[in-house]
Parts: sequence; structure tokens; C-alpha cells
Amino acid sequence: MSKYTIISKRSQIGNNVRIGNYCIIHDDVIIHDNVEIEDYCTIGYPTPSADGLPLVISNNSHIRSYSLLYQGSVFGENLKTGHRIMVREKTIAGKDLQIGSFCDIEGHSEIGHHVRLHSNVHIGQKSKIHNFVWIYPYVVLTNDPHPPSEGFIEGPEIFDYSVLATMSCILPGVKVGRHALVAAHSLVNRDVKENTVVAGVPAKYLCETKDILLRDGSGSAYPWTHHFHRGYPDSIISEWKKGYYDFEV
Amino acid sequence: MSKYTIISKRSQIGNNVRIGNYCIIHDDVIIHDNVEIEDYCTIGYPTPSADGLPLVISNNSHIRSYSLLYQGSVFGENLKTGHRIMVREKTIAGKDLQIGSFCDIEGHSEIGHHVRLHSNVHIGQKSKIHNFVWIYPYVVLTNDPHPPSEGFIEGPEIFDYSVLATMSCILPGVKVGRHALVAAHSLVNRDVKENTVVAGVPAKYLCETKDILLRDGSGSAYPWTHHFHRGYPDSIISEWKKGYYDFEV
Amino acid sequence: MSKYTIISKRSQIGNNVRIGNYCIIHDDVIIHDNVEIEDYCTIGYPTPSADGLPLVISNNSHIRSYSLLYQGSVFGENLKTGHRIMVREKTIAGKDLQIGSFCDIEGHSEIGHHVRLHSNVHIGQKSKIHNFVWIYPYVVLTNDPHPPSEGFIEGPEIFDYSVLATMSCILPGVKVGRHALVAAHSLVNRDVKENTVVAGVPAKYLCETKDILLRDGSGSAYPWTHHFHRGYPDSIISEWKKGYYDFEV
Repeated sequence: MSKYTIISKRSQIGNNVRIGNYCIIHDDVIIHDNVEIEDYCTIGYPTPSADGLPLVISNNSHIRSYSLLYQGSVFGENLKTGHRIMVREKTIAGKDLQIGSFCDIEGHSEIGHHVRLHSNVHIGQKSKIHNFVWIYPYVVLTNDPHPPSEGFIEGPEIFDYSVLATMSCILPGVKVGRHALVAAHSLVNRDVKENTVVAGVPAKYLCETKDILLRDGSGSAYPWTHHFHRGYPDSIISEWKKGYYDFEV
Repeated sequence: MSKYTIISKRSQIGNNVRIGNYCIIHDDVIIHDNVEIEDYCTIGYPTPSADGLPLVISNNSHIRSYSLLYQGSVFGENLKTGHRIMVREKTIAGKDLQIGSFCDIEGHSEIGHHVRLHSNVHIGQKSKIHNFVWIYPYVVLTNDPHPPSEGFIEGPEIFDYSVLATMSCILPGVKVGRHALVAAHSLVNRDVKENTVVAGVPAKYLCETKDILLRDGSGSAYPWTHHFHRGYPDSIISEWKKGYYDFEV
Repeated sequence: MSKYTIISKRSQIGNNVRIGNYCIIHDDVIIHDNVEIEDYCTIGYPTPSADGLPLVISNNSHIRSYSLLYQGSVFGENLKTGHRIMVREKTIAGKDLQIGSFCDIEGHSEIGHHVRLHSNVHIGQKSKIHNFVWIYPYVVLTNDPHPPSEGFIEGPEIFDYSVLATMSCILPGVKVGRHALVAAHSLVNRDVKENTVVAGVPAKYLCETKDILLRDGSGSAYPWTHHFHRGYPDSIISEWKKGYYDFEV
């Protein structure tokens, strides 16, 4: 039984939902089944910017402690978060999303399926992240081409299977192509071609991703789907093994 | 009515002040009128470094949830914060300050009027920020020229209307001139002249700010006061329209 | 007396331990004597990855508010933390560790004695930090050479007395030698020799640390042990004065 928790009677809470201590569940919240919400969380933080839309947390999700989710976002099933995350309104996310501790998702963005955000990722508004993308700590997706502006906001677009390594910054409107790799501590100010590696400030073409070798001599490190399978369902892995990347997820 | 909140009888709380749930209001706190303090906030965290000075929150302020404000800082009216901010003692800030979520203001600093700090800005001690400055996510203002030192601490000084873009680092004692722009992901190790743009690691002169054009072909993006007015009062905008930048604020 | 706090009867709590409000003390926790735990802390957050090991907080420690410590880590005496820190399981740390606000220590790491981590430091798993190391805000220690991988995780190793300045990123497996200095905003992708300074993206040799002079003309800024003594015990300072750096700590 949770202690010192405040739950609105207007919230809709499914079966087998566990809510921790010191939580606040606001009005405009739909929580589906088999969900765990840990201590000190704020669920469905109200904002007029949500236009009255509820927060939707789907089946089999796990929100870790001290997290803050605004009203007006929708998450697919199997959401897993770290601690102290923050997600603002109108974030529309697919299934199997992982959000690391201290992430700041500013809302008004689209996130695909099976995306992995490590700790302290900052997703500016109007970002678009496709499926199977990996984003590492302290990466920032920006949206303002000549700050401060207003009518010119344009987020980056990060395509399937691409990887943004630690402390990189992606400038407004930049497109990072499929299976691309942005090296750590890069500033990406122009589009990145698929299957390529860019690095530096500003980031320049370094090589093809296939030229990066695994340290054990077993071959190329990319596409990472060749050797990294942790946490993905067998149905997806078997597609990858056949060399398919565009199946329905 | 707030639940599970702890309010010291020694605190001074004005009219029309709303305090959320799970808050702690400590002794040395002066909250003026029409203030909202959201859930899980700590207001007036005690520290001997404050020399007994109170925290002052002025009229029409809004502190969002999970925020932590130390004893011994003073904010002008109309302070707006994001969530989970932290401000230590002896921060002296003007009116209409915005502090984004996860900001870490280390205290012993001066901040002018109408300053905008986005998420995750780190303001080291002894920083001086003038009026109408914009600082973007993950910018760090440092203060130690050869760490760790002690008697040599000197913060940066950021002058009126300048803009520090995402993930830039400003080194100790560096002065960023009026209307200047520090590009994203820059390391600024020498003074930046007014009306100029610097970029890179280390940052070098790139161009005059007026050479940066708005994407819609309507002219120069800077001074940003020509086209960006959101949230500023009409009295200020009308001065800008006349080309005045040094009026009383 | 703490209010609204939840303390497991299975936890072991020593003498003169002060626990704040809204705290949760879980089962597998050993807190020794003269410890202060501030408000909103989670102590001993349970995880199967801890293999049943307890969290150990030793004598004379101080955990500031909103902090989260997992089960399965061990800290030597005199731990001091900032606010909102997070330390995951299997972090083995020596005595006199300081952890700044917003730090994210991902666990499965070793940290020596007298280490200083400022705000927002990210310590990836498998990191090894020796004694008297200083790490500044927004530094990231990474561990994945070609992300995402799994069997290839290797943390950096940071040797005694070295200093990592603000916003630097240390790549997997990199060794930073004794008394070395990594300049601000650097990307370190190869080993750093002792007593040297590296800077840039990627970081290159800049000079010997002894070539960096204190601003008051009193001599070299490094080794910093020559002039910076704040917070260290006299027994250690007297060793440094004799030019000894390898004594038992």
C-alpha cells in the first residue's frame, strides 16, 4: 500500500497498477494494466498547452522514482524510465521506449518504437526520432536556428537505427540518416548520410560505419543489429538476421 | 489545500500565495504576494553561508515542482522557474527571470533583469549576467582558472542582450560583449566583442551578428530584439523599436 | 523528528543518525554513526543487480536532499553529497568522497579516497577513479567503444591527483595519468601521460602541467597540492609538503 500518495478520482487506472509513496496522480491520466509507478512521481502534470488531452501510459510500463510526466503525452506499451525524468506535453512515443535518468523531453515531439535514450538526453520541441534509435548521455537536440526566434523552430530528424554518441549536439533541422553514427562530443550542423560516421566540432565525414571494427576481430561493429540483441524480441532479431530492417514493428 | 506540507511559523508569507503538496518552507523565507510554489519544493534551505540572510521571492512568481532554493538569495518580481531547479545562497537576481528545469545556480552571483536560462544551465559562483541575456541548455559558466584553486575564482561576465547557445562553456573571467552570440558547443577562452559571433573549440571569430540572416529572407536575425518580442512588456518593445537598448528596466 | 518518513525495520541505523522528512529507508541498508540524511532521499533503492548486498554509508557522512542511493554500494567514511545525486549498485568508494548535485554514478565502478566530483558528473559503469582525483561539472566517463555493444564495455581509468575540467568526455578504456590535466570541453580518445595537459576535440598534448602558472606570479599551478589544501587533513598536507604522493591514505 502506498503511503502519502494523492490520486485524483478523475484519473483512470487499470488493473495491476502499483503506485509508490509520495506520488501525485492528476486528473487527466489514463494508466493501462500492469504498470509500476515508483515513489515521488508526478503523473499527468496539468498544463493548458495540452489542450485538454490526457497522459496515456500503456500496458507493462515502469516509471522510476522522482519522474514527472505532463498531461497530453502518449506512450506505447512497455515504456521503461530511469529516475527523475521529465516529459512535457504532446510527446507521442511508440512502444518499448527507454528513457534514462535525468532526461528532459520538452514535448511536441515524435518518438518511434524501440528507441533508447540514456541519461541526461535533452530532446527539444519539434524533434522527430524514428525507430531503433540510440541516444547517449548529454546529447542535445536543438530547434532554434538563430536563438531566440519563434516562428523558425525546427527540430532535428533522426532516422532508424542511427546512434548519437555522448555529448553531441544536433542543430535545428538536421537529418541524421539511417544506420549513421555521430561520434561523441560532436556538433552536427549539416545532414548526416546513412551508414556514415561523422565526428568533430563541426562534425565532418569520418568513414563508413562498416569500417568500424569490433575489438574482438569478429568483424564490423555496424550495423549494430548484427551483434547487439539485448532486450529486443526474437521476432525482431530474426528479421535482422535475414537482413531486413523495414518490417512492421 | 496542500497536503503533507511543512511550513515554518517563522517564514513570512504574503497574500494569495499557493503552496503545493510535500513542500518544506524553512525559517528564513520572505514570500511576497501572488506567488505559486508547486509540489515537492524546498524553499529557504538553510546554510551558514547565507550569513543569516533570508530568501526573498517577490510578487507574481511561480516556482515549479521539485525545486530547491537556498536561504540568502533575492529574486525580483515575476520569477518563473522550471522543475527541479536549484539555486544556492547569495544569488541576487533582477525581475522577470526565467530559470529552466534542472538548472544549477551555484550562488554568489548577480543576474540582471529579463534574463532567460533554459534547461540544465550551470552558473558557477562569481558569475555576472547582465540584462536580457539568453542562455541555452547545458551551457556552463566556470570560475576556476587552474582547478582546483581557491583564491583565484573569477566568474565570466555576460553583457546585455547576448546569447550563449547550447553546450557552450565560458571560461573564468571571460567577458561576452553586448549583443554577441556564442555558437553551440563552443569553448570560449577569451573575450567576445560586442555584436560578433564566435564558434568552435576554442571559439574563434566567425562573423558579425548582423551577417546572420533570418530564414524567411526578412533580414538580419540580430539584434534579436528586432523580431523576437514574446513575453516582454510593450514598454520595452517600444524602446527596442526606437533602437534604444540602454533604457531603465 | 522527521515527518512523513518511511523507515524499514530491516534497515540497520547507527547512533546519532538524523533522517529528514519524506525519506524512504529501504531494507538492505547499513548506516553507521553521525550521519545526516536530508529530506526526500531514497536510501537503499532495491535492485536485483545488487545480488542482495546492502548499501553501506559509513561514519560522518552527509547526504543532501532529493538524493537516491541504490542497494549494493559501499562508501567510506566522511561521504558528502550535493542534492539530487544518484548512485547505482556496486559502486565501491573510499573515504572522504564528495559528490556534487545532479551527479549520476551508474554503478559497477571503483572510486578511491578523497575524490571530488562537482555537479552533473556522469560516471559510466566499469570506471575506475583513483585517489585525489577532481572531476568538474558535466564531465562524462563513457564505456562503450562502439555503441550499442555489450561484451565490450570498458570504463576509463583516472589516476591519482589528475583533474578533468568541465564538459570533457573521456572515451572507453582511456587512461588519464597521475597529476594530468584535461582541459575544459575536451574529447579524450587516447591515453594522457602523467603531468601533461591535453585539450581539444579530439584532445591533443598542450604542455606540461608545470608550465601553467598561477595568476599571482607565485609559481606553477601544478601539482595543485602545492597550493590547494582546503578540506584535506593536516596529515596529508604535510606529506605533500615533503613531496610525497604515494603514502597510505
